[in-house]
Amino acid sequence: MAGNSYGTLFRLSTFGESHGPALGGVIDGCPPGIALDLEAIQAELNRRKPGQSAIVTQRKEPDTVEFYSGIFEGKTTGTPLGFLIHNTNQKSKDYSHIKDQYRPSHADYVYEKKYGLRDYRGGGRSSARETASRVVAGAVAKQFLKDIKIQAFVSAVGPYFLDKPTQELDFSVIEQNPVRTPDKAFAEQMEAYIKEIRKAGDTVGGQVKCVIKNVPVGLGEPVFDKLHAELGKAMLSINAVKGFEYGSGFAGSQRKGSEHNDLFNADGSTQTNHSGGIQGGISNGMDIEFNVAFKPVATIMQDQPTINKAGEAVVMQGKGRHDPCVVPRAVPIVEAMAALVLADFVLLNRTYQK
Amino acid sequence: MAGNSYGTLFRLSTFGESHGPALGGVIDGCPPGIALDLEAIQAELNRRKPGQSAIVTQRKEPDTVEFYSGIFEGKTTGTPLGFLIHNTNQKSKDYSHIKDQYRPSHADYVYEKKYGLRDYRGGGRSSARETASRVVAGAVAKQFLKDIKIQAFVSAVGPYFLDKPTQELDFSVIEQNPVRTPDKAFAEQMEAYIKEIRKAGDTVGGQVKCVIKNVPVGLGEPVFDKLHAELGKAMLSINAVKGFEYGSGFAGSQRKGSEHNDLFNADGSTQTNHSGGIQGGISNGMDIEFNVAFKPVATIMQDQPTINKAGEAVVMQGKGRHDPCVVPRAVPIVEAMAALVLADFVLLNRTYQK
Amino acid sequence: MAGNSYGTLFRLSTFGESHGPALGGVIDGCPPGIALDLEAIQAELNRRKPGQSAIVTQRKEPDTVEFYSGIFEGKTTGTPLGFLIHNTNQKSKDYSHIKDQYRPSHADYVYEKKYGLRDYRGGGRSSARETASRVVAGAVAKQFLKDIKIQAFVSAVGPYFLDKPTQELDFSVIEQNPVRTPDKAFAEQMEAYIKEIRKAGDTVGGQVKCVIKNVPVGLGEPVFDKLHAELGKAMLSINAVKGFEYGSGFAGSQRKGSEHNDLFNADGSTQTNHSGGIQGGISNGMDIEFNVAFKPVATIMQDQPTINKAGEAVVMQGKGRHDPCVVPRAVPIVEAMAALVLADFVLLNRTYQK
Amino acid sequence: MAGNSYGTLFRLSTFGESHGPALGGVIDGCPPGIALDLEAIQAELNRRKPGQSAIVTQRKEPDTVEFYSGIFEGKTTGTPLGFLIHNTNQKSKDYSHIKDQYRPSHADYVYEKKYGLRDYRGGGRSSARETASRVVAGAVAKQFLKDIKIQAFVSAVGPYFLDKPTQELDFSVIEQNPVRTPDKAFAEQMEAYIKEIRKAGDTVGGQVKCVIKNVPVGLGEPVFDKLHAELGKAMLSINAVKGFEYGSGFAGSQRKGSEHNDLFNADGSTQTNHSGGIQGGISNGMDIEFNVAFKPVATIMQDQPTINKAGEAVVMQGKGRHDPCVVPRAVPIVEAMAALVLADFVLLNRTYQK
Repeated sequence: MAGNSYGTLFRLSTFGESHGPALGGVIDGCPPGIALDLEAIQAELNRRKPGQSAIVTQRKEPDTVEFYSGIFEGKTTGTPLGFLIHNTNQKSKDYSHIKDQYRPSHADYVYEKKYGLRDYRGGGRSSARETASRVVAGAVAKQFLKDIKIQAFVSAVGPYFLDKPTQELDFSVIEQNPVRTPDKAFAEQMEAYIKEIRKAGDTVGGQVKCVIKNVPVGLGEPVFDKLHAELGKAMLSINAVKGFEYGSGFAGSQRKGSEHNDLFNADGSTQTNHSGGIQGGISNGMDIEFNVAFKPVATIMQDQPTINKAGEAVVMQGKGRHDPCVVPRAVPIVEAMAALVLADFVLLNRTYQK
Repeated sequence: MAGNSYGTLFRLSTFGESHGPALGGVIDGCPPGIALDLEAIQAELNRRKPGQSAIVTQRKEPDTVEFYSGIFEGKTTGTPLGFLIHNTNQKSKDYSHIKDQYRPSHADYVYEKKYGLRDYRGGGRSSARETASRVVAGAVAKQFLKDIKIQAFVSAVGPYFLDKPTQELDFSVIEQNPVRTPDKAFAEQMEAYIKEIRKAGDTVGGQVKCVIKNVPVGLGEPVFDKLHAELGKAMLSINAVKGFEYGSGFAGSQRKGSEHNDLFNADGSTQTNHSGGIQGGISNGMDIEFNVAFKPVATIMQDQPTINKAGEAVVMQGKGRHDPCVVPRAVPIVEAMAALVLADFVLLNRTYQK
Repeated sequence: MAGNSYGTLFRLSTFGESHGPALGGVIDGCPPGIALDLEAIQAELNRRKPGQSAIVTQRKEPDTVEFYSGIFEGKTTGTPLGFLIHNTNQKSKDYSHIKDQYRPSHADYVYEKKYGLRDYRGGGRSSARETASRVVAGAVAKQFLKDIKIQAFVSAVGPYFLDKPTQELDFSVIEQNPVRTPDKAFAEQMEAYIKEIRKAGDTVGGQVKCVIKNVPVGLGEPVFDKLHAELGKAMLSINAVKGFEYGSGFAGSQRKGSEHNDLFNADGSTQTNHSGGIQGGISNGMDIEFNVAFKPVATIMQDQPTINKAGEAVVMQGKGRHDPCVVPRAVPIVEAMAALVLADFVLLNRTYQK
Repeated sequence: MAGNSYGTLFRLSTFGESHGPALGGVIDGCPPGIALDLEAIQAELNRRKPGQSAIVTQRKEPDTVEFYSGIFEGKTTGTPLGFLIHNTNQKSKDYSHIKDQYRPSHADYVYEKKYGLRDYRGGGRSSARETASRVVAGAVAKQFLKDIKIQAFVSAVGPYFLDKPTQELDFSVIEQNPVRTPDKAFAEQMEAYIKEIRKAGDTVGGQVKCVIKNVPVGLGEPVFDKLHAELGKAMLSINAVKGFEYGSGFAGSQRKGSEHNDLFNADGSTQTNHSGGIQGGISNGMDIEFNVAFKPVATIMQDQPTINKAGEAVVMQGKGRHDPCVVPRAVPIVEAMAALVLADFVLLNRTYQK
């Protein structure tokens, strides 16, 4: 329970530091008989990897996943899938200057206090590089989920908000622009803004929205393991996430019941979807919709005052290759975690079937 | 894993429907040797109970908790605490009219689909009455946590937002006004607004903010069980919650790194607290601060169109005794869940000590 | 994880001390729609209760179970079942003489060392009275399992061993003799022996065998959660159990492969059953068979030298009302734990079904 | 919960088939700051590996473990340790003849029924090769446990039983003879017997005894997670294990209480140790002693009648390179699983410390 596993029945356990020899994980509970498309898994990993566009970090990491078990003659066997992603671009020397310093709003200080020591190379385990393993497992989960379609996209970058209703968005353009937002014109504005931020040696936060279609009624285990509670935990476990809301979310807290209630159609669907596809912690068959807020990346290309181990004031130099805005690369991570949550609940829900 | 347990080492398992004979639970993992103040536990339960003021539901439920085990000569023994809260005001007849109808934005429809049948009396297990057991366990957790002080309060009701910085709030007045907000003048405005809403037979949403002081550095288990991820799950598991954010939250997603980073003081504390007391998923010793958004209560005192089991359009009558706004009574529930999360992480963190 | 819960999907959490006001538990994950026969549950509890024959403890405890939730209109609802068994015959005064003494081969010493204090009244939580909650949950599990038939019986008392092959036993007489052994003549010998032991103020150990019929192929989750590994843990968690073996067991360790292998019939059944119905940790459809060894009850009606808290030599007086031999009353407990294990694995196995 | 993880706080998740590219695992919860001796870990793995003596399988597998994370500058960091053991000697062709046949008393039949397909190469996941990952993790656990000394040895091979009391055994000779038994003369007898069995193309069962010294008082979590219950599960999860007993075990079930009770010395130690170091499920500071029974290896070098997928009678040819008796190589596996159980309980027990 040291925190490196996720899920109950469809369960991922991960390991790996940003500058160790490899990252990886074990996927346990993946049902047998799934004809795995390994290229599709690699493609998901490629969506997350650095260097894919001008507005993300220019580090070069091939991020190739290798599977070691659980697959036989192209199909899952029901036994655990072990996998590795080798780190090929570690450049540990880059990090010697932060060995004794605590970077502001990073995990350096708390890791050192909690564990008594820390792998200071690039954040070690606290680096978002860890999420590569999540994307691999999420890609496997997606193939298990088949008809359930999970689509995330960038809905805000700094002050730029995509205000349109979900129905008016064009999901087909998401992967065609480096920001990963379903509106071409807006994508260009955001891209220009991110480049500006990067030029200033700064970073900026943003939001990712996720829409999940074709969800069967019945997923979620009240009272504590409500579907949205697990989705919330899953999203909040991603580096830099500061908030989660589903359906009407924070805005809904300002509404009146008479205008917020989702009235039923004859087939059990609802006329509105303030519930975000979840009622009483259980999916109701409508699209699941939630938003995830990401803070600005803490590593900026500017000098910052900070302290070292001895508590002395020092100046932290801004250098390295980092993302000016994390949300474009966060899109596949949000999808991956959503897939893990749903896969788990789909399996749990099978236990109700006679 | 059917969802009725919370926590790993400090673990609560609950049971009970709104109109069954009793609610209750088992608290496992509470450390031995704690001199339990049972009156303090009952006092927490009283903060949650119906009928305590003019702006909450007027149902009368004494909500007296009885313990059956785990306490000997006034102290916890390290064995599980079993407890019961008898339901004394069940009035099952009130609910016969909804037996075959699905209330809009309630759990009726999804429970019936998931489980194949449902206890239709007052929501059964999906009723917020279930949270009484959480408050009992949270009150035990609070006594275990001792120096860690958890204080929640209402920060918004409908369009009324308490905008002041936390330092300017007067926590001493929280329990002196029925809204439970740390500002007398504002409390009166909110109270008047809630009465107005109630008079209109409507309901309204709101927000609860929670501030936790004296948190030791080191709580939280990255990467998946980050402190804020568990807090988020815990809050989102409470009935009617639609969103969670900590520290700078959603607003922080609009900021730049250069203005968002929390710079260190020489002692490891930070000059600002956009991190909300948590960095890299681990408490950093600063106050933990988070917000919880609640939707408007779905039961309104107005007729609403809905469907019955047969999929026929029917009119749902608005009657019964319900809260016009859930946040005043949600305050002790938010605190209870926060206490459960912290108690669990305090125990987990002990495993790092030699 | 303080040890008072059992199972993953079909999960029991228990509480209660031998001399507190009540014992009880929460059964989570029991599937919905089961028409529960409450009398059958009480009947199982009656099989375990004291005072039922001349060869068990003469304490009088009605042991009536009350359910508080999870049942509606006679059927399980899929929500947790909370239940209580009130202690009506506590007689705490009987135990004041052992307050500061450690009874040999009891848990007194280790509880005090582990927890720093102990409920010294009759063993508190370490009393076998705790198993009443297991029997209730096991009885619920049996009703869920329906066609899977679990039958335990006494196979040895002290030096008396029932040597006959399972097929030659008469299961119909098990509940017709106080020893609960499937052989009338042998039952009389055992009964006479137990009476002799009791007259001498002594106790004696014994064995319980369990046979489970109509088990579907496929239960068990290798590699760590093999079916027999969980059965073993479940049995070893029962008070006074010292050993577990399945199929050919310890005797099988003396055999050669050529004589031990179970050869297949054309339908996948096997000609012999040295495997005890389990191969590779998974049920193979043959009868599951296992043995459980119980030590002699540690409370004897003879004076024994022991120590007190101060480490001083004292004489422990033999008094109270205790079982001379635990195995007759252990039969329903063994069945209950077997039922819990199987119910959990049946649910887990459903997750493999498309 | 698909069964490939072990432990709660000190937790191992494994993967890998006998004929896949690699085996491996993730160790989560290993405390930070342990200066890991990697050679000692490899040495444990060497004790398990094939080809080490004339009486074990002559397969050649180097079984070299590589760690990928969780270690920095020679010390554990508190983050998970990922590791791999490459399979270098897979020879998949050897197994084509069993593709459509079910080997008697193997897992072939049940895997195919449970999962719908199976990796037929050498048993796949059901092969005892999987235990290599356990030995790696157990070796890490041993280094964490430091002063707690775990020593297993062969106590029986077929009809040969080592009858001497533990005190009269010479543990220093265990690793000096291929049988791994603490008595030179007896080792020679056993070795000769195993060679005879092998020559006959047969196999034979045996027993492993384990003695654990310097165990602190207080390990174990009643009521369900009793120390011996977890040890039992851990041992029964090892391939080919048919039984587990601790302390007086099955023999103890024939004894009287008056002769079985362990009387206290003034310091809390006991004069005898029928309890096997565990009372009420909690370690009492005496040596923990338990026995594990292994069945004869099911793969024999003789032709056997069996069935194929179509249910037709076929003859299974005896060929390949297998152990005539599994117990010599099982010794390090028993120790590894014991170490995992103890490491977990040591961490759990820390949660009781203020």
